[in-house]
Amino acid sequence: MAPVKKGVQINEAACDLAREVANEGDALVAGGVSQTPSYLSCKSETEVKGIFKKQLEVFIKKNVDFMIAEYFEHVEEAEWAVQVLKASGKPVAACMCIGPEGDMHGISPGECAVRLVKAGAQIVGVNCHFDPLTCVQAVKMMKEGVEKAGLKAHYMVQPLAYHTPDCSCQGFIDLPEFPFGLEPRILTRWDMHKYAREAYKVGIRFIGGCCGFEPYHIRAVAEELAPERGIVPPGSEKHGMWGAGLEMHTKPWVRARARRDYWEQLLPASGRPQCPSMSTPEGWGVTKGHVDLLQHKEATSSQEMKHVLEMQKKAKSSA
Amino acid sequence: MAPVKKGVQINEAACDLAREVANEGDALVAGGVSQTPSYLSCKSETEVKGIFKKQLEVFIKKNVDFMIAEYFEHVEEAEWAVQVLKASGKPVAACMCIGPEGDMHGISPGECAVRLVKAGAQIVGVNCHFDPLTCVQAVKMMKEGVEKAGLKAHYMVQPLAYHTPDCSCQGFIDLPEFPFGLEPRILTRWDMHKYAREAYKVGIRFIGGCCGFEPYHIRAVAEELAPERGIVPPGSEKHGMWGAGLEMHTKPWVRARARRDYWEQLLPASGRPQCPSMSTPEGWGVTKGHVDLLQHKEATSSQEMKHVLEMQKKAKSSA
Amino acid sequence: MAPVKKGVQINEAACDLAREVANEGDALVAGGVSQTPSYLSCKSETEVKGIFKKQLEVFIKKNVDFMIAEYFEHVEEAEWAVQVLKASGKPVAACMCIGPEGDMHGISPGECAVRLVKAGAQIVGVNCHFDPLTCVQAVKMMKEGVEKAGLKAHYMVQPLAYHTPDCSCQGFIDLPEFPFGLEPRILTRWDMHKYAREAYKVGIRFIGGCCGFEPYHIRAVAEELAPERGIVPPGSEKHGMWGAGLEMHTKPWVRARARRDYWEQLLPASGRPQCPSMSTPEGWGVTKGHVDLLQHKEATSSQEMKHVLEMQKKAKSSA
Amino acid sequence: MAPVKKGVQINEAACDLAREVANEGDALVAGGVSQTPSYLSCKSETEVKGIFKKQLEVFIKKNVDFMIAEYFEHVEEAEWAVQVLKASGKPVAACMCIGPEGDMHGISPGECAVRLVKAGAQIVGVNCHFDPLTCVQAVKMMKEGVEKAGLKAHYMVQPLAYHTPDCSCQGFIDLPEFPFGLEPRILTRWDMHKYAREAYKVGIRFIGGCCGFEPYHIRAVAEELAPERGIVPPGSEKHGMWGAGLEMHTKPWVRARARRDYWEQLLPASGRPQCPSMSTPEGWGVTKGHVDLLQHKEATSSQEMKHVLEMQKKAKSSA
Repeated sequence: MAPVKKGVQINEAACDLAREVANEGDALVAGGVSQTPSYLSCKSETEVKGIFKKQLEVFIKKNVDFMIAEYFEHVEEAEWAVQVLKASGKPVAACMCIGPEGDMHGISPGECAVRLVKAGAQIVGVNCHFDPLTCVQAVKMMKEGVEKAGLKAHYMVQPLAYHTPDCSCQGFIDLPEFPFGLEPRILTRWDMHKYAREAYKVGIRFIGGCCGFEPYHIRAVAEELAPERGIVPPGSEKHGMWGAGLEMHTKPWVRARARRDYWEQLLPASGRPQCPSMSTPEGWGVTKGHVDLLQHKEATSSQEMKHVLEMQKKAKSSA
Repeated sequence: MAPVKKGVQINEAACDLAREVANEGDALVAGGVSQTPSYLSCKSETEVKGIFKKQLEVFIKKNVDFMIAEYFEHVEEAEWAVQVLKASGKPVAACMCIGPEGDMHGISPGECAVRLVKAGAQIVGVNCHFDPLTCVQAVKMMKEGVEKAGLKAHYMVQPLAYHTPDCSCQGFIDLPEFPFGLEPRILTRWDMHKYAREAYKVGIRFIGGCCGFEPYHIRAVAEELAPERGIVPPGSEKHGMWGAGLEMHTKPWVRARARRDYWEQLLPASGRPQCPSMSTPEGWGVTKGHVDLLQHKEATSSQEMKHVLEMQKKAKSSA
Repeated sequence: MAPVKKGVQINEAACDLAREVANEGDALVAGGVSQTPSYLSCKSETEVKGIFKKQLEVFIKKNVDFMIAEYFEHVEEAEWAVQVLKASGKPVAACMCIGPEGDMHGISPGECAVRLVKAGAQIVGVNCHFDPLTCVQAVKMMKEGVEKAGLKAHYMVQPLAYHTPDCSCQGFIDLPEFPFGLEPRILTRWDMHKYAREAYKVGIRFIGGCCGFEPYHIRAVAEELAPERGIVPPGSEKHGMWGAGLEMHTKPWVRARARRDYWEQLLPASGRPQCPSMSTPEGWGVTKGHVDLLQHKEATSSQEMKHVLEMQKKAKSSA
Repeated sequence: MAPVKKGVQINEAACDLAREVANEGDALVAGGVSQTPSYLSCKSETEVKGIFKKQLEVFIKKNVDFMIAEYFEHVEEAEWAVQVLKASGKPVAACMCIGPEGDMHGISPGECAVRLVKAGAQIVGVNCHFDPLTCVQAVKMMKEGVEKAGLKAHYMVQPLAYHTPDCSCQGFIDLPEFPFGLEPRILTRWDMHKYAREAYKVGIRFIGGCCGFEPYHIRAVAEELAPERGIVPPGSEKHGMWGAGLEMHTKPWVRARARRDYWEQLLPASGRPQCPSMSTPEGWGVTKGHVDLLQHKEATSSQEMKHVLEMQKKAKSSA
């Protein structure tokens, strides 16, 4: 197998798989592009757009239903992606992985959204990097920016399923728990009900999820909005709403939990008394163009690890 | 379909499914029985044993490889189960759902184990109700009891995948988070490495998991014991050990996490600053024979809910 | 004793006591006025200023060294106080009890400071309501505002000795722990070292403390700035810097704590595993002019308590 | 001044000061002895008793009202102290600084108490090292031991004013926060009410405090037991019981806190989201006779500090 074809073949296979599953129900298939190491390494607009174009060719060939440019930390790169994708003639959604503080150069969510709409996106929003309520807040700011500019758009949100109150502008990447110690931060289904309601109130109509979402999380989102959607999601028949199945439990104090206000008011314990509730993010305040972020072709050498640990110590002592 | 056959049919189908999956690899199939509401309602030994016998008939017909009597809160009922199961001639494993404090009548893990071995179990241990290290501690006490009595047995452990430092003798059932708000307590894969090592050190050789275990948890258990077992578990080829895959990450401070001691020493934050780290269990100190624990045929009525909430208030104010 | 003279007599006695203590060393005596219930009840400028004037008469008679107008939530009332106090010809310091969000009407710290300087204050700053680093941040914003307006001032800060990361604009008054459950929030002496250093860096030269400060807290502030001040504070001879006294402790692991970096890096545990790390403030979003804030002449009646508890429930459910 | 007289002179001055204060009210003066570095360094019974005798001479000369042998980690040394003190003919109280796990050699509280009563103590109990409820639990075990042995005694308790749920047998000495970062653990006055009630219920009649107690803590203890004692403590007239003074507060949500159940149910937040709720004690499992515990005449050298830090690292990695 020729290595130059590898990415293309993976994307083709992915499109086929997604279409197969989508056809089981009433779902759409999207072709997606994300931020590139090339952009972080300061390659030119032509080079970066070339990467997006190569991916787009597969999506056009496979006739996906719409396009998503998502997980962009710099609005400029997201604009380039939207400009490439809109050539397909398909609807284009554009998501930044930012919070209320804006992109890596401090450009506000409102301004990011305006620029993405002007670049050609019909849907704008955020995905990944922050917890649901933080993402909803960022999309709210996007909507306010778009409306203030006299423009129109639809809105989407695809947050993490992890609580991230301690994140700074680069989100959960900088948390010490990323990516293999995030368990204590996982949202409950009741957190998801709250998220779905808040997102809907703000005017977001594409309400999804990113890293950490399990099927029961998405089901909870769909159940919260069942009245608005007019349908109860598949899978809901397997359990009672708001813990109703507990009504038959042997222990009466567990039966007493078969009610909505119990779960809405619960403040669940971590079971980890030696652990804190918030971490100190590690980000070193470097972004696009910094030598430490140049794309690597090889794994971290022991010499580089030494350099990294020294920089880390320096970053901590100056914090 | 005649309703009297329902349980039998479900168990038959379950045996067939389990055998189908077991045949994909080198796995065994067990037939399992658990504690009965009849015992809690003070039915006779004959009645309770009758329930186990009915289940055993299916397991014999389907020719399972061994038997498990598990999730017993009272050693007496577990003995009855073992006595029934050993009639099959198959190896019998017996697990209590107890911690170091012992069963619901205060019978110590050591004494429980001795009684189960005498009743005919070749393997004894604990499952469910407590976190991994607590369960390992309870099985260690079982082993000490068995050895002190001059008996012999194999040992097994199948703990929760939730941290439960705040549990009293009845385990996680009594935690306010049970069963739909346990997320912050989920173990990381690194917690699982520690659990597997501890269990092995204590001399336990059937090391598994109960509620909350995900495939990556079991993989971590198998990876920790790869040197002892002489095989690396299937699925391990998808990732690098101890976060080695992070060596290629764009951010250098994330690359610095590609090492064992980072993850071993991490104290992960909950991301929930309004939540405590430990809860106060709710148990009312009632067990077998108490009127509030009689088996229900119907769901909780609003009148019963009122009674339950009143008892709860009373229990709290006297705490 | 005629009741109308009571306030005057108390203030006279206070001035005498303060002078007596100040004369023991090299200290100054200030006469201080604070926000009035009359302002919250929407009384007129003349009425409110009348209250300040009555107090000023005592301070003039007793010849205090300077004046402080402190603990003001509304910059307008603070301006009135400064205008009254500057008639004395003494230096006037003006402190708001605000954080970075500004006063109760959302007027920023920078604008508050400009208005206070224009009203005649030579020193501006904040006191009470927030923890040290939050107060330093607010004074920093005041300084930036004053300098941007081309004005000049000295700066002071008198924060709480309690950590308040969870406070909203009204500060610690709204925390559920106020005022009789604040113990877990008390700063360590090492927190005080950090505070003193930060305040000094920002350019604040009147660095003090408000509720919760103990003598050892103030000593720590003075010790941190001993190099800048050229004097070691009285009381420092009783102990070794940075835990040096532990060098003689019997246990070697305690001797190992006789060093600065140990205490600087310590993250002290609360010892309260059932308690959260942050609270949800209770403020109802009402301020000056709201009927619920009118000055009471009598203690809370049981009928009023019922009304208050109902409003509280309402506030929580809409949170 | 001859250095050999120093200790005697200090103790004489202390007795005079204590008597002066005691005479202001209706208080007693005790002469107290504590554990000796000599015992830890394995000196003989004669040498250790010699130290106690030298101190006793001063107490006899100054005619104190009773004797306390307190803060003993080894019951053997406490017995020696009691044997010396009872020669005075004065009542002797004996307190160990132990918790429910017993003394440093694992001798249970019950057995310690029996040995102390047999050695001649009329009052037995515990002081220091653990939080109030843990100390009450230890004294309860002492009382049960004494009664089971058919003996009689009075009981006393003088706990820390710090929460110590995470301590192992050597108490708060081994906590990383000891002794200069204990602030987040300080008890509220409401914790003190609970402590006083529990101690009284257990049958303890000398209910006091050790490190961390402030005057308002002792006042709370005395207020809780005012009905039993028939007197309200001096200082209580300065405030309303259970926050009653808040009835006049400007903010209605603060007025709502003027009631007992509010403060009894409050779970106060730490205000430290980066800190855990429990620490891991540092003790190395060494006690009397270990070379690392030999009495030092000089401060820790930099070489010894290096040795200590290495041992610490070793202790942690084997934990």
